[in-house]
Amino acid sequence: MDERIKPYLIASEPYYRPAGREVELFEAAYARRMPIILKGPTGCGKTRFIEYMAWRLRKPLIAIACNEDLSASDLVGRFLLDANGTVWHDGPLTTAVRCGAICYLDEVVEARADTTVVIHPLADHRRALPLDRRGELVLAHADFQLVMSYNPGYQSSAKDLKMSTRQRFGALDFHYPHKEIETEIVMREGAVDSDTATRLVGIARQSRELRGRALDEGISTRMLIHAAGLISHGIDPHAACRIAMTRPISDEEDVLHALDGFVEAHFGT
Amino acid sequence: MDERIKPYLIASEPYYRPAGREVELFEAAYARRMPIILKGPTGCGKTRFIEYMAWRLRKPLIAIACNEDLSASDLVGRFLLDANGTVWHDGPLTTAVRCGAICYLDEVVEARADTTVVIHPLADHRRALPLDRRGELVLAHADFQLVMSYNPGYQSSAKDLKMSTRQRFGALDFHYPHKEIETEIVMREGAVDSDTATRLVGIARQSRELRGRALDEGISTRMLIHAAGLISHGIDPHAACRIAMTRPISDEEDVLHALDGFVEAHFGT
Amino acid sequence: MDERIKPYLIASEPYYRPAGREVELFEAAYARRMPIILKGPTGCGKTRFIEYMAWRLRKPLIAIACNEDLSASDLVGRFLLDANGTVWHDGPLTTAVRCGAICYLDEVVEARADTTVVIHPLADHRRALPLDRRGELVLAHADFQLVMSYNPGYQSSAKDLKMSTRQRFGALDFHYPHKEIETEIVMREGAVDSDTATRLVGIARQSRELRGRALDEGISTRMLIHAAGLISHGIDPHAACRIAMTRPISDEEDVLHALDGFVEAHFGT
Amino acid sequence: MDERIKPYLIASEPYYRPAGREVELFEAAYARRMPIILKGPTGCGKTRFIEYMAWRLRKPLIAIACNEDLSASDLVGRFLLDANGTVWHDGPLTTAVRCGAICYLDEVVEARADTTVVIHPLADHRRALPLDRRGELVLAHADFQLVMSYNPGYQSSAKDLKMSTRQRFGALDFHYPHKEIETEIVMREGAVDSDTATRLVGIARQSRELRGRALDEGISTRMLIHAAGLISHGIDPHAACRIAMTRPISDEEDVLHALDGFVEAHFGT
Amino acid sequence: MDERIKPYLIASEPYYRPAGREVELFEAAYARRMPIILKGPTGCGKTRFIEYMAWRLRKPLIAIACNEDLSASDLVGRFLLDANGTVWHDGPLTTAVRCGAICYLDEVVEARADTTVVIHPLADHRRALPLDRRGELVLAHADFQLVMSYNPGYQSSAKDLKMSTRQRFGALDFHYPHKEIETEIVMREGAVDSDTATRLVGIARQSRELRGRALDEGISTRMLIHAAGLISHGIDPHAACRIAMTRPISDEEDVLHALDGFVEAHFGT
Amino acid sequence: MDERIKPYLIASEPYYRPAGREVELFEAAYARRMPIILKGPTGCGKTRFIEYMAWRLRKPLIAIACNEDLSASDLVGRFLLDANGTVWHDGPLTTAVRCGAICYLDEVVEARADTTVVIHPLADHRRALPLDRRGELVLAHADFQLVMSYNPGYQSSAKDLKMSTRQRFGALDFHYPHKEIETEIVMREGAVDSDTATRLVGIARQSRELRGRALDEGISTRMLIHAAGLISHGIDPHAACRIAMTRPISDEEDVLHALDGFVEAHFGT
Repeated sequence: MDERIKPYLIASEPYYRPAGREVELFEAAYARRMPIILKGPTGCGKTRFIEYMAWRLRKPLIAIACNEDLSASDLVGRFLLDANGTVWHDGPLTTAVRCGAICYLDEVVEARADTTVVIHPLADHRRALPLDRRGELVLAHADFQLVMSYNPGYQSSAKDLKMSTRQRFGALDFHYPHKEIETEIVMREGAVDSDTATRLVGIARQSRELRGRALDEGISTRMLIHAAGLISHGIDPHAACRIAMTRPISDEEDVLHALDGFVEAHFGT
Repeated sequence: MDERIKPYLIASEPYYRPAGREVELFEAAYARRMPIILKGPTGCGKTRFIEYMAWRLRKPLIAIACNEDLSASDLVGRFLLDANGTVWHDGPLTTAVRCGAICYLDEVVEARADTTVVIHPLADHRRALPLDRRGELVLAHADFQLVMSYNPGYQSSAKDLKMSTRQRFGALDFHYPHKEIETEIVMREGAVDSDTATRLVGIARQSRELRGRALDEGISTRMLIHAAGLISHGIDPHAACRIAMTRPISDEEDVLHALDGFVEAHFGT
Repeated sequence: MDERIKPYLIASEPYYRPAGREVELFEAAYARRMPIILKGPTGCGKTRFIEYMAWRLRKPLIAIACNEDLSASDLVGRFLLDANGTVWHDGPLTTAVRCGAICYLDEVVEARADTTVVIHPLADHRRALPLDRRGELVLAHADFQLVMSYNPGYQSSAKDLKMSTRQRFGALDFHYPHKEIETEIVMREGAVDSDTATRLVGIARQSRELRGRALDEGISTRMLIHAAGLISHGIDPHAACRIAMTRPISDEEDVLHALDGFVEAHFGT
Repeated sequence: MDERIKPYLIASEPYYRPAGREVELFEAAYARRMPIILKGPTGCGKTRFIEYMAWRLRKPLIAIACNEDLSASDLVGRFLLDANGTVWHDGPLTTAVRCGAICYLDEVVEARADTTVVIHPLADHRRALPLDRRGELVLAHADFQLVMSYNPGYQSSAKDLKMSTRQRFGALDFHYPHKEIETEIVMREGAVDSDTATRLVGIARQSRELRGRALDEGISTRMLIHAAGLISHGIDPHAACRIAMTRPISDEEDVLHALDGFVEAHFGT
Repeated sequence: MDERIKPYLIASEPYYRPAGREVELFEAAYARRMPIILKGPTGCGKTRFIEYMAWRLRKPLIAIACNEDLSASDLVGRFLLDANGTVWHDGPLTTAVRCGAICYLDEVVEARADTTVVIHPLADHRRALPLDRRGELVLAHADFQLVMSYNPGYQSSAKDLKMSTRQRFGALDFHYPHKEIETEIVMREGAVDSDTATRLVGIARQSRELRGRALDEGISTRMLIHAAGLISHGIDPHAACRIAMTRPISDEEDVLHALDGFVEAHFGT
Repeated sequence: MDERIKPYLIASEPYYRPAGREVELFEAAYARRMPIILKGPTGCGKTRFIEYMAWRLRKPLIAIACNEDLSASDLVGRFLLDANGTVWHDGPLTTAVRCGAICYLDEVVEARADTTVVIHPLADHRRALPLDRRGELVLAHADFQLVMSYNPGYQSSAKDLKMSTRQRFGALDFHYPHKEIETEIVMREGAVDSDTATRLVGIARQSRELRGRALDEGISTRMLIHAAGLISHGIDPHAACRIAMTRPISDEEDVLHALDGFVEAHFGT
């Protein structure tokens, strides 16, 4: 394996609790090097899943957080001035393409048009990345795969993936885990007992029913783990839920009042 | 042939299944070096066609994915700093013009105004590319031809080709292939039997009737090949259609429900 | 003549078929070095006319395709880094001003404000180009003339020439040529017989009546020459009209149907 | 401790008067290196609190004032030209991540999207900062913690934290201090007697009831300290309140008249 | 006089025909170095007037055509890279300030905010130009004067001079010259007889009555001189008026018809 | 005193005529190094006041004219390329902070967000300026004070100071001087007799009653001095008022007519 991507190998097995057939399906997609979109709400485990799959497939993982100020050059590379003049430096996407890593574009709808279009020739039968500024056509390493994440809850006409992008990818749906699985995750990651974990999950599930109405998103698994961690550190459950679960997700009095009600329903007043 | 464009020669015959007289007509256009627009929906084979024609005509193909952040300098070239000062580097369009390649501007409506205007003198009787920043007028090599692709389904008043651009080009229409041809393509490219390919094509054809209403575009041939590939890898048809055909093209419950119905109609519930 | 502009001399007489007194009037304007706007629809021969006049007057012609990303620096020049530091490089407008060429700004309404304003002191009694970044005032060579083209059909409040620009220029109107002249041009440039040329011109003239309603512009002379060229290459007239005349100018079913009707009216069904 | 962050250690104990359990809760959050948002109105003591906690935890504090022109490069670092070519310079966030400081992003809603997204991998289980332009993945020092401040009173749909950001953080609410505590702070920081401090606090509390109606914010503790300071310098209370409390927060005659009324109610006419 | 501004001295007396007391008033303003705005429609002689005054006062004239892409650096100066590193180059405004020229900002409403604000300290009692990027405060040479031109006919809320700019300047009104004076100017500058000049002026005066309704501006003196020049070159008056007066100022059929009527009224049909 | 700021010392006493207790109050604010906003209409003497106070306090004054194109780097400093690579150059704000000058940000509402936010840590108890790009935290010199000017008459929702900025500052109100004081100023600065000055002030006071209705601002003291100067130069009062007072502040016929009426009321018709 190329020295440049060795640091991106995931050394030890990440904790990931499968919720369905996603591991099997991803392996089949990888076998064909089919580009994949992971669809699902924030904090439900998409990033953890791709880390787990990279570890399982023994492939390095180069993750890039997309945003509207990320340019195509940030992905692909640029010329930098050296003591002997300008020298080309591969960007993280080019490194992944050349050396055979899984490239993970996190929250791809946030990216600018040029970022999205630059991956088109990588995501069809060509599997090639043209470095126009360098006059080079990089053919993808046999191990290279392109993966993107996408939160359909944020979907709007202004910030949606173009159909010409979507049609180049397969898609796997992600959701918050089932009650029992989520409780298990909170116990393990937050180091609390089953009873506390059950109550925390109960609060989160109530909050998720407000989604799309009072809240853009409900309380995520990640937030439950934060709250559990504070409880295991000795903070009382009401204060822990307040700091880690309710205050972060809303600033509106009414919504906070409703969320505090959920906490009291599970932990007493 | 110039060394700089040899890497752009297409080594082996690309698989392309003609749907009409497009090969003959393109050859006549090339004989006159008439600039051509390929019009048609995403994933219907425009890119594959131009690769096939480049191979057939034994001409190198320089493809450029257009986007709103691609500047005229990205196409034409720029000065870069070297150990001895600034040195001019030809962009991919200039390389094609000087050395006699077919230059393919993919999804040209996405390009900025300067990208589109810069090709005007190349697309009329002048066949010349002025490098204003360098003070050079490059006359096109006898083999040079300009080709662009364009998806009229995306056509809007804001992002349309200007008439002064359109009038410099001939245009070839592309559509999804006829039922029998598309089945043949899916069998060959996806390595499935005739029965499976027929069912997949049936689903796609149903989805295409939703185009312009529930969907911006129907399921493309490319997606059918993805699904067929997963089936030939051992994934059951329902899961394969879900990951490769239905989940990528919509996030809306109603539409996904309708698409799942098409899958069940062809592969059983 | 200065070495820098010799490459811009037009070596052989361009084919231009006058439609009225435009040659005489342009010569009178040039005699006074009066700046001139060529007004008219796309593809009607404005560029060919200025090439012809430049040839006739034995003056070099520097043509610049305007667009909204063309900056004043692109016209005027800039400092570039050399082995010994920054060195000034004249832009194409400055070259024309210093050395005495005709400078032709094609589609000037597309230009940004700074591009348009930079020519003001060149277009009045001063005939001077201030290079502010260099601290130099370049007085125009006695042979220098400024010419711009402009398509009033695109005229909109947002993209219109400012009155302070217009008042510095004289204006010559251009239209598509008269029936007989256009037929003669198509015969000569497209290498077809009189009968075919007459039919092609008939189709174009019908399409031009749709201008401003179904079409932004009708079929131009340039498109007729393309179609004629394909016919003389052996393509049947229906296919040639389709690829070179009707498909490029519209994507709408209704309009294409009407245009196909014009073709059938002239070449049979 | 790394030499680079020693200057960011807070040498002497900052004056901070706790209003509730915020010290205990922050210490528990820090123990888990949980990222924290400090929510509250301007001038209520958020910055002083984080300075106090950094002093108490004996950790350096790197504070960054966010604004819409602060780019990701300003946080993360950039290549700068040296005598020997370009050399990478860590930005303040990277310094904090590498060396183990508390990084405080003040008024984070003002930041651009790229600034906010760049902290995502630092704010979840990865605790990593990818320097894409350098091809380096910086794993956070064990002492590193991320803290942001946020004024929910400014909350608007256009400038709100994205849910994917919020869900990575815990949140602590801040308010103006209780009457007695605020009086104590004004006495100490402004060097006035108890009677004067009580009157100043009384004026501020009345102004805060106008918040959201006539005023965006009421008079802050910081402003009371300014007024007290002028009084202790010998300026009469009416002039001191005018210059330090009422004239800065509004330009509208009606509002100023009401505020002057509060001053007269406490200090006489 | 400083060598740098000698090229900006006006060698021979420009032809200027005073319309009122503007010469006397400008001289009084110059005696106090009071900054002056020249207000009036395009092509009425503002630029010629300032050239005449500069010649009369024996002061160099540095004219800058303002536009929305002109930055403060373009006016003030910038660092440029030399063989020995970056070297400061004065911009045209700084040259005028240091060496004592009249600086003429043409069409100042077109300028960006930074261009306008940068002149504020030059236009009040300070008469100083701070070069912030260089850390230098340039005190104006005793001969320096600031003059701007402005067309109130273009006045709109979006592009108006700020009151803080206006209050630093005196203002002189300009209009098209009186009938007799304008005829005299056309005779002299266009080399035509009195009768022809009278007819041309008659057409222009009729067109100016359409101003604000069918036309943004009427036909200017400059255009009359163009038409007269063509007539004296042998072009018939109808063609000369068409090319130099009517076609440049409008593209609308109705307006052109009306303007042609004025021509026919004066020169016959 | 540091060599770098000596040029900013004000050598001789500026003429300033106090209108109230502003000198005493400013001295008290300076004693506490309290940041101050000077609020008032354009041309009423704010800049002259801060010059006077800087002279009185024997402190250098660094004035910066704010505008929407002034970046934080323009204030704070930047790296410039030298013969030995990039070298940091302090901006004017950093120079004031390091060396102990009064820094005066003129028309601060015009500044961009980053300019305003960059001063926050300088304007609270921290008195520090973080140079993020340089990795340096500059603690303010003991003599440093921050002063801004602001015209509440321009106040709009789009361009208003943020509350978090306002709350860091004290504020002093400025108005046009009282009738007698203004007359005294015009006599002294414009070199006219008491009668003429009284008439000029009378015109100005009438114009100020139109403020907010027909005029954005009335005629300022500065304009009266200009008119008086022309009169003392020998220009008749009507022409002097026209050029220096009425024509600069409006382009509208009705308003100009009204203003001319005020002139006639004081100087006769």
